Amino acid sequence: MRIVLIGAGNLATNLGKALHGAGHDIVQVYSHTWDNAQRLATIVGGAATDDLSSIVSSADVYIFSIKDSALGEVIPQVVSGRADKLMIHTAGSMPMSLFEGMALHYGVLYPMQTFSKSREVDFKVIPCFVEGNDSYALSAIAELASSVSDRVSELSSDDRRYLHLAAVWACNFTNHCYEVSAELLRKHGIPFDVMLPLIDETAAKVHDLAPIDAQTGPAVRFDENVIRAQSLLMRDNPLLKDLYERMSMSIHKVALSKGKK
Amino acid sequence: MRIVLIGAGNLATNLGKALHGAGHDIVQVYSHTWDNAQRLATIVGGAATDDLSSIVSSADVYIFSIKDSALGEVIPQVVSGRADKLMIHTAGSMPMSLFEGMALHYGVLYPMQTFSKSREVDFKVIPCFVEGNDSYALSAIAELASSVSDRVSELSSDDRRYLHLAAVWACNFTNHCYEVSAELLRKHGIPFDVMLPLIDETAAKVHDLAPIDAQTGPAVRFDENVIRAQSLLMRDNPLLKDLYERMSMSIHKVALSKGKK
Repeated sequence: MRIVLIGAGNLATNLGKALHGAGHDIVQVYSHTWDNAQRLATIVGGAATDDLSSIVSSADVYIFSIKDSALGEVIPQVVSGRADKLMIHTAGSMPMSLFEGMALHYGVLYPMQTFSKSREVDFKVIPCFVEGNDSYALSAIAELASSVSDRVSELSSDDRRYLHLAAVWACNFTNHCYEVSAELLRKHGIPFDVMLPLIDETAAKVHDLAPIDAQTGPAVRFDENVIRAQSLLMRDNPLLKDLYERMSMSIHKVALSKGKK
Repeated sequence: MRIVLIGAGNLATNLGKALHGAGHDIVQVYSHTWDNAQRLATIVGGAATDDLSSIVSSADVYIFSIKDSALGEVIPQVVSGRADKLMIHTAGSMPMSLFEGMALHYGVLYPMQTFSKSREVDFKVIPCFVEGNDSYALSAIAELASSVSDRVSELSSDDRRYLHLAAVWACNFTNHCYEVSAELLRKHGIPFDVMLPLIDETAAKVHDLAPIDAQTGPAVRFDENVIRAQSLLMRDNPLLKDLYERMSMSIHKVALSKGKK
């Protein structure tokens, strides 16, 4: 397929590479930052632009991988005059209906992964969730997704909102826990890499056990002395101290609900 | 060495297996629950007991792996009459001084890992942190730790408190994020295993990038619309909704502090 990529951030970069690698023709890369557009265009081919009015009309598919809050403004400008083209966005939390009343064939291709520009990922194993407004759009998007990933499923906009929320917990909030851990170690002169075997085992465990059965530590044991002492160790940062206490409370609550089952 | 294990929980089970595998002689296993003592004694050898007054005096080392809150009560009963033996506890958050004034040679062997009885772990790669009240205790405990792990370091009680707190964030709180994620998926009929590639990549990333450089998602982008919408999706659980908002705020705060550096 002939593709225009709207966006050159973490997701656009990794998706663009995967599409290019699968043999698709990236004809143009747009970013509102010229350097980003050019950097990605150099990797995946095609022309770079930072001007929405210069977007070409010769492509089959337009893929929007930009900040969620910018979609509402950018989509109408690109779709206008190209209503017969296939329009796709990649945002986990945004509904397919963003294109409604503007495009004829449209949908969503949401690759659920954490992307950083500096890090190569194997796109083949990334679960991709697709949706289309009609059978043509759905099958075209599913085919596009299947050319880069072996794990393509159909999912509605409504369920995808919850999937994305679940991903925020499993990835962004988890990484924040790593951030807090790293900062505590740094302050005490302990290298962060001592934590890696524990981080790896915590992730590996939930391949075999449900997270509720994998939990360990003072909160699930409701070891109040340790919880109180650890909470005090965080008193120089009231937001983190508060998070510590609420996380412990929530772990205990989940453990109690499990006991009742 | 001839060892008595006080405790038969997750940590005692895994440490006991590793010590037994390294050729040490586990002469006795105590648990206040007879079944647990017997189960572990069957695996690692030695006699089982659920009676503190029946603990033998013929061992070289007594290792306490019990709930932190029970240490204060159990230690004096075991040390009494055996003040010349090497006394060790394995609790991340408890100071070495628990033994002070009772035993002559004592210390800590803290294996930093998440242990579940049902899951085999490779003890060799587990970072073990040791401490001793004198050079004899320290070298004996370091030698014992080195017989089961390749990653032994000395760490003071004070620093170990922060290490343990950092481990609670990196492991228990991370696992709670997985729990919340799993529950959200369950409610929407999506199998948890779709989340595993994301969980694995989130853990793998921090081998190469500092957590602060690995962060992605709506909170670090400060995508307020998504944050507000996702927070509303959690309104049926006020504690989790609150955690969602505070985690997002804390991620944003860390990102701002990074920008200032």
